Amino acid sequence: MMIVMERFCSPEAVEAVVERLESRGCDIHISDGQERIVIGAMGAGTDLEQLPWEAMEGVEKAIPVLKPFTFVSRDFQEEDTIVRVGGVRIGGNRFTVIAGPCAVETRDQLFRTAEQVVKAGATVLRGDAFKPRTSPYAFQGLAEAGLELMAAAREEFGVPFVAEVLDPRDVALVASYADMLRVGTRNMSNYSLLAEVGKQPKPVQLKRGFTATIEDWLHAAETIYKEGNHQIVLVERGIRTFETAARNTLDITAVPVVQRLSHLPIMVDPSHSGGHHYLVAPLAQAAVAVRSSGIMVDVHPSPDTALVDGSQALLPSDFAALMDRVRKLAAAVDLEM
Amino acid sequence: MMIVMERFCSPEAVEAVVERLESRGCDIHISDGQERIVIGAMGAGTDLEQLPWEAMEGVEKAIPVLKPFTFVSRDFQEEDTIVRVGGVRIGGNRFTVIAGPCAVETRDQLFRTAEQVVKAGATVLRGDAFKPRTSPYAFQGLAEAGLELMAAAREEFGVPFVAEVLDPRDVALVASYADMLRVGTRNMSNYSLLAEVGKQPKPVQLKRGFTATIEDWLHAAETIYKEGNHQIVLVERGIRTFETAARNTLDITAVPVVQRLSHLPIMVDPSHSGGHHYLVAPLAQAAVAVRSSGIMVDVHPSPDTALVDGSQALLPSDFAALMDRVRKLAAAVDLEM
Amino acid sequence: MMIVMERFCSPEAVEAVVERLESRGCDIHISDGQERIVIGAMGAGTDLEQLPWEAMEGVEKAIPVLKPFTFVSRDFQEEDTIVRVGGVRIGGNRFTVIAGPCAVETRDQLFRTAEQVVKAGATVLRGDAFKPRTSPYAFQGLAEAGLELMAAAREEFGVPFVAEVLDPRDVALVASYADMLRVGTRNMSNYSLLAEVGKQPKPVQLKRGFTATIEDWLHAAETIYKEGNHQIVLVERGIRTFETAARNTLDITAVPVVQRLSHLPIMVDPSHSGGHHYLVAPLAQAAVAVRSSGIMVDVHPSPDTALVDGSQALLPSDFAALMDRVRKLAAAVDLEM
Amino acid sequence: MMIVMERFCSPEAVEAVVERLESRGCDIHISDGQERIVIGAMGAGTDLEQLPWEAMEGVEKAIPVLKPFTFVSRDFQEEDTIVRVGGVRIGGNRFTVIAGPCAVETRDQLFRTAEQVVKAGATVLRGDAFKPRTSPYAFQGLAEAGLELMAAAREEFGVPFVAEVLDPRDVALVASYADMLRVGTRNMSNYSLLAEVGKQPKPVQLKRGFTATIEDWLHAAETIYKEGNHQIVLVERGIRTFETAARNTLDITAVPVVQRLSHLPIMVDPSHSGGHHYLVAPLAQAAVAVRSSGIMVDVHPSPDTALVDGSQALLPSDFAALMDRVRKLAAAVDLEM
Repeated sequence: MMIVMERFCSPEAVEAVVERLESRGCDIHISDGQERIVIGAMGAGTDLEQLPWEAMEGVEKAIPVLKPFTFVSRDFQEEDTIVRVGGVRIGGNRFTVIAGPCAVETRDQLFRTAEQVVKAGATVLRGDAFKPRTSPYAFQGLAEAGLELMAAAREEFGVPFVAEVLDPRDVALVASYADMLRVGTRNMSNYSLLAEVGKQPKPVQLKRGFTATIEDWLHAAETIYKEGNHQIVLVERGIRTFETAARNTLDITAVPVVQRLSHLPIMVDPSHSGGHHYLVAPLAQAAVAVRSSGIMVDVHPSPDTALVDGSQALLPSDFAALMDRVRKLAAAVDLEM
Repeated sequence: MMIVMERFCSPEAVEAVVERLESRGCDIHISDGQERIVIGAMGAGTDLEQLPWEAMEGVEKAIPVLKPFTFVSRDFQEEDTIVRVGGVRIGGNRFTVIAGPCAVETRDQLFRTAEQVVKAGATVLRGDAFKPRTSPYAFQGLAEAGLELMAAAREEFGVPFVAEVLDPRDVALVASYADMLRVGTRNMSNYSLLAEVGKQPKPVQLKRGFTATIEDWLHAAETIYKEGNHQIVLVERGIRTFETAARNTLDITAVPVVQRLSHLPIMVDPSHSGGHHYLVAPLAQAAVAVRSSGIMVDVHPSPDTALVDGSQALLPSDFAALMDRVRKLAAAVDLEM
Repeated sequence: MMIVMERFCSPEAVEAVVERLESRGCDIHISDGQERIVIGAMGAGTDLEQLPWEAMEGVEKAIPVLKPFTFVSRDFQEEDTIVRVGGVRIGGNRFTVIAGPCAVETRDQLFRTAEQVVKAGATVLRGDAFKPRTSPYAFQGLAEAGLELMAAAREEFGVPFVAEVLDPRDVALVASYADMLRVGTRNMSNYSLLAEVGKQPKPVQLKRGFTATIEDWLHAAETIYKEGNHQIVLVERGIRTFETAARNTLDITAVPVVQRLSHLPIMVDPSHSGGHHYLVAPLAQAAVAVRSSGIMVDVHPSPDTALVDGSQALLPSDFAALMDRVRKLAAAVDLEM
Repeated sequence: MMIVMERFCSPEAVEAVVERLESRGCDIHISDGQERIVIGAMGAGTDLEQLPWEAMEGVEKAIPVLKPFTFVSRDFQEEDTIVRVGGVRIGGNRFTVIAGPCAVETRDQLFRTAEQVVKAGATVLRGDAFKPRTSPYAFQGLAEAGLELMAAAREEFGVPFVAEVLDPRDVALVASYADMLRVGTRNMSNYSLLAEVGKQPKPVQLKRGFTATIEDWLHAAETIYKEGNHQIVLVERGIRTFETAARNTLDITAVPVVQRLSHLPIMVDPSHSGGHHYLVAPLAQAAVAVRSSGIMVDVHPSPDTALVDGSQALLPSDFAALMDRVRKLAAAVDLEM
């Protein structure tokens, strides 16, 4: 950490900061320039940065040097984490496609969708039983009945599935059915939920909060990691910006940035970020070209009757066409499928 | 709702939309302009807007006309809601000051702070026992021991208190001690938590998510309201923008906007929005001048040793000086204190 | 346009709005719902929306139905515009690569760069003689001497070039040398400059303002178009958001959104959006995969001595490696190069 | 400046950075921590930060310590700048009110407005002759005829006036009439225009770009200042954020932040930031309470016929009522009027 003192601070103020740093076991280096004194403090980890340095007299600002997360960083682990969902591996040099309905509505809707997405090449199924909705008046999901249908689809089509969990009290229930749990964008900073998914053994998909910085997101991943669960897949799904032409702004830059900072796999959700069916294919294609670890796509047999997010769902036939392009693009950037 | 059709859509596409609207019981008006056909649908409430209209053939966009919340709107209730916290009223023509430490650390820290903020004119005490922290390595609060200390301070100084609740499983515990519960900025979209605080009888402070639109925020309030709890106070606390000179950008405009849309009281948190002690007084003063329903201020007897958010805490003496200005400004805009 | 009246507005207020609309030659349709009266006005173009409807008594809001631009929209021209820069075509089913130094510094720097980017497959050269810098103390470019060097490089390597123009007084000068003019991100809303480039015959690259919505951007393009210059290429180069891990957030979604709204070609600048050399290749690859009309890439023979934006420049060898991937990706999505 | 090296960088990489810093005349301090080497460089001003440090091998990031502007900072000048517009002083302990029509339309409109705003207490008149409009189809202003009307109003009502200038070629013209020039929000980064207004002697109002950080804004002010014109008034007018309930989000926090960083006066424009007449009074009141140097308010005798921004204009009677509150609030925070 670097502490920049105010221009005309007193020697006593400098001394007080130095003493406090030394009491924490830091090595101190003072750079006394013409315009500012800067106190460098090394060797005491990131805890130091939590202290209210800017409340001390004469301190202009405290600048962190280390990144504020440890276990999920490339500094801690050089090689890529590979996450296993049932028999499917996510991460490394592999591009994985997850697909299915946004929400499970009926057995028929689910099975028709699952059959076709698996046939087209998806290796993990999605389909939620608990839906977080902005409006309290919208469809909230089938709950346990939905998980049962997903388990039946797993039997029928031979692929593992991921399902969202919204409430720390439901973690055990969802984990008893699903192969992978998802923490959604609205819950990325729900620390009670993060702690619970961190304590159970199923892998976890952690969607980026639509207003979270990459640093916040890796903090949230660290919260899960330190509870003991290291099987975490990050999912970029768009951020909130001033642009309203699409639902959110897919932060495609986040993929290479995260890959540089962290060893965890990062996938992309082209369906929820754009919010419109005609944006899904281009954004999915971009996700391959930046060499992310995969995509998660909403598919519905009749989007105009979908109970949740129908405007963004692909028809099974459109999904199959997309998969053809995805395969060609993956080959072009040396990713396995 | 208004449905704008694409420029060269077929008559069948228009017919399909009209049929679907009529099947929902809407009155239909078709405006057939040179460049676009617009289908107006009245009389079926906000449910209609949840349907995936943009997934239907020929639909360019669906434009909502009604606001997507009902009970918390001025349309539903013309007069201001007055919320009662212990013997204190919040709302209407009254300006209320809540103050105290961000987090309860020790009895001494709490009591020294409480004594002085009450003496300076605060009528509700703050002090949290559960803290949501971005970093998993930071101080998480004293839990029930903190609530006990707050209850003791209430006895000693004769003022009610508000405390944050983070987890739906803790709602009953916090409600058994506190006079008012707070849902914090990171939990504004935690629907499990919103539902739980909506089912218990203590009043609720609902902070704005730092990335929530005003519409999202009123949606969250609606979720609490429809569970039966109508004693809700909104708290503006800054939003995330591209500007990083302060921690967040206080959206002072939200105060008159919310007062126009909703009957619920809206207060301002000048401490968490700015994140720096030197910003607290100016932002608190602005909160009076826009005629909000009050402020909530962090005060700490020695900010440079605070375990949480020390950089933004006021010294008790600075708080007392602020209160003098607050009283003068309140008088200037005809608010009672 | 749709005008939504306030809930309890008077019949006189409705009448006043209707009269004003009729005086402008609109067809009027009134939808009188339980909760709101909505007045639809068709047939008077976008001028109508410039009027201060919300200043009229009883008006809650005015909602535009038509898009606020005409000539650059797909409604006006169905087929793609193809822009010609020297002998190079941009747009349609073609992917074009522009490369070169951010700023022209010396003959040696320019010629070494130009030789290698042309060899690797770039068909248009970039290299600016006027640089807009945030800091008044930074290098501002070589001015006319820079344009002369660019013209010499065109002779030597047989490719046309594009150069930025900053000031309406310099348009004639830059147009006398360059094959294409660029309006940069900071000048996208400089209407004096837009008007001048619209009055001369060279094609124009219009970069998106880093804080401009897509609608603002198409407005700016319309300003150029209506002056008579229809040879416009849009360039997405990242927008300002709360995320600071990269310089800007590349809005890759803007590519399919613009392609749906407008017939103008849209390219991507992966260098200025990310601001770091290690982000250029992934973002360039994404630009191919979403089927944009091309990329513009900063290349420098020794980035660590570059006078402008060295942190984002590719070495010529890295650029050549990128071009191999670009060709494979273009083939995968059926684009010609 | 602090240069943070990558974790496993080579000694040669460190050496190369040190040599380059020393060649620029810096004092070097190396902090060699367990996890990172940090190289501190003092004594070479802000030029150093323009160099592409991150393009050097082994460099993780370069962190500036000094602020990137000099003359407009409090470090350079401790005491407040007082700007003189005709006989009116702006800055220091004084609160100044500028009012008038957004755009000059007719002599009658201007004179009716001017008479009443002066009577209510405005001491500077506004009224633009050149209007920057997002749409190329909107009213663009009366040009020189508008300036002549403003000059006539100055004669009649005895107050100086401010007018916007859009084009570097118009600076001399506008300066020949107006007492103060304005650079508007869309031109804040138009360096050609900034340079021209910096070379002439009339004081300059510099509005914040609606997507500019405070740092960008002070950079723009520095550009004017270093050309020789030190009479600069900053005007906060709202920034673009994800919130769309008002036109922009007034960044009221910018007032105390700028007052800490710079000696230049900062005013607030409550009309353009909110964009709705019912937001003007609350935002203007907030501007007084944070102790800004004044407000600039749009007033129009019949807003519903205004050619520009009628939705946000106050009636003269509403402006007079606002002035009563402004006077009371100014007294409450010890500002002179």
